[in-house]
Amino acid sequence: MKATKKEMVYEGKAKKMWSIVESDDLLISEFKDSLTAFNGVKKAEEAGKGELNNKISTQIFKLLESKGIKTDLVETLSDTEQLVKKCEIVPLEVVVRNIATGSLSKRLGIKDGTVLPFTLVEFCYKDDALNDPILNDEHCLLLNAVKTEDELERLKYTAREINSILRKFFDEKGLKLVDFKIEFGKDKDGNILLADEISPDSCRFWDKETNEKLDKDRFRQGLGGVKVAYEEVLKRILS
Amino acid sequence: MKATKKEMVYEGKAKKMWSIVESDDLLISEFKDSLTAFNGVKKAEEAGKGELNNKISTQIFKLLESKGIKTDLVETLSDTEQLVKKCEIVPLEVVVRNIATGSLSKRLGIKDGTVLPFTLVEFCYKDDALNDPILNDEHCLLLNAVKTEDELERLKYTAREINSILRKFFDEKGLKLVDFKIEFGKDKDGNILLADEISPDSCRFWDKETNEKLDKDRFRQGLGGVKVAYEEVLKRILS
Repeated sequence: MKATKKEMVYEGKAKKMWSIVESDDLLISEFKDSLTAFNGVKKAEEAGKGELNNKISTQIFKLLESKGIKTDLVETLSDTEQLVKKCEIVPLEVVVRNIATGSLSKRLGIKDGTVLPFTLVEFCYKDDALNDPILNDEHCLLLNAVKTEDELERLKYTAREINSILRKFFDEKGLKLVDFKIEFGKDKDGNILLADEISPDSCRFWDKETNEKLDKDRFRQGLGGVKVAYEEVLKRILS
Repeated sequence: MKATKKEMVYEGKAKKMWSIVESDDLLISEFKDSLTAFNGVKKAEEAGKGELNNKISTQIFKLLESKGIKTDLVETLSDTEQLVKKCEIVPLEVVVRNIATGSLSKRLGIKDGTVLPFTLVEFCYKDDALNDPILNDEHCLLLNAVKTEDELERLKYTAREINSILRKFFDEKGLKLVDFKIEFGKDKDGNILLADEISPDSCRFWDKETNEKLDKDRFRQGLGGVKVAYEEVLKRILS
């Protein structure tokens, strides 16, 4: 559909959101080329990154929709822009982990690369000033991030469903889905939708054979070849 | 009963544990005068503190036993020593909070002194090298800190029971029970027992009228009058 930008309603580290002239229920999500890590302490620009993430995330959201997961994606508008359903973002980063690495390994002393005995779901409070603190279930209710225990259980259940679908999908593409971060939103009818993005910015992908990192860890750890890695992920998704 | 120290089997920041000649199922717990805070970064000695905590904790454990909570306490042996049941300590610090303060306020940005809408239970992993990281329920299982979800729920339930009993008791003594940390152990038959201590080292007590702090925060925050505060808590418990 035709969507004409009205005003920018939000600018985050990786995206700008715009209201549109044609509808109050839809927004344009514009993917930026900015790369940030460690809560914005490390920053860079990578030309073409926004386009790659838009394309990767669109493919993944379409796959998930085809498997019954409700998402906020309406359609692709351009190389860096999506039309999405407007929703109230649940202020939780939902982290799903299959293999221990990064902050989990550091926090709990679990050896990097350890395959976890079960899929771990973690919630972090979306609050940059507090450095996105990790929460237990009771904290989520205390902070009114969710309204009920049942809502929290539904988020966990959906996160695990998404993991099951994507883990299998990426395994067939020769990639280990190590972990990923997702966000949810509620539309005007109270439906919980997968929102934000799923991309190498928000996932860790390791090559199944070589364990080569094909995600934002290349930026976090200064390994170089960020764009080449993201291109490789897109190539495999489309293969 | 007669209990003769055999060898020191553990020395922590606030206590020494001794095996005894007369039984393999019992230990002597000896309360030290050491005060530590911020995971041992701040340290001091306070003559008489061990004796005060031994007396306070004994009174509280006896109260809890009388209300049906199983504890490791057998009997008092001296001013600073208790005879306790030997148990395998569950490697979790169980934190129960009625009012937001300290690390909770800092971590989640909740104003100091806010009365919480429900009693919050938190688990931290007992690991000094990792700085006792906060855990969600799944982490507790992942780290084998508990064997089953049911066991974890029983810890939460017992922690809330203890809170109900103590909150009422201290209210009658003119003290607000702000929060406290407890530990549990399993005896040789698999029973879960309240272990360690409950004292002004492990609780926050605020005077009901003046909000004066009568606990280890006097040490943490360099307010002075630590021993006087602990004496006041004992006096009120015995009143």
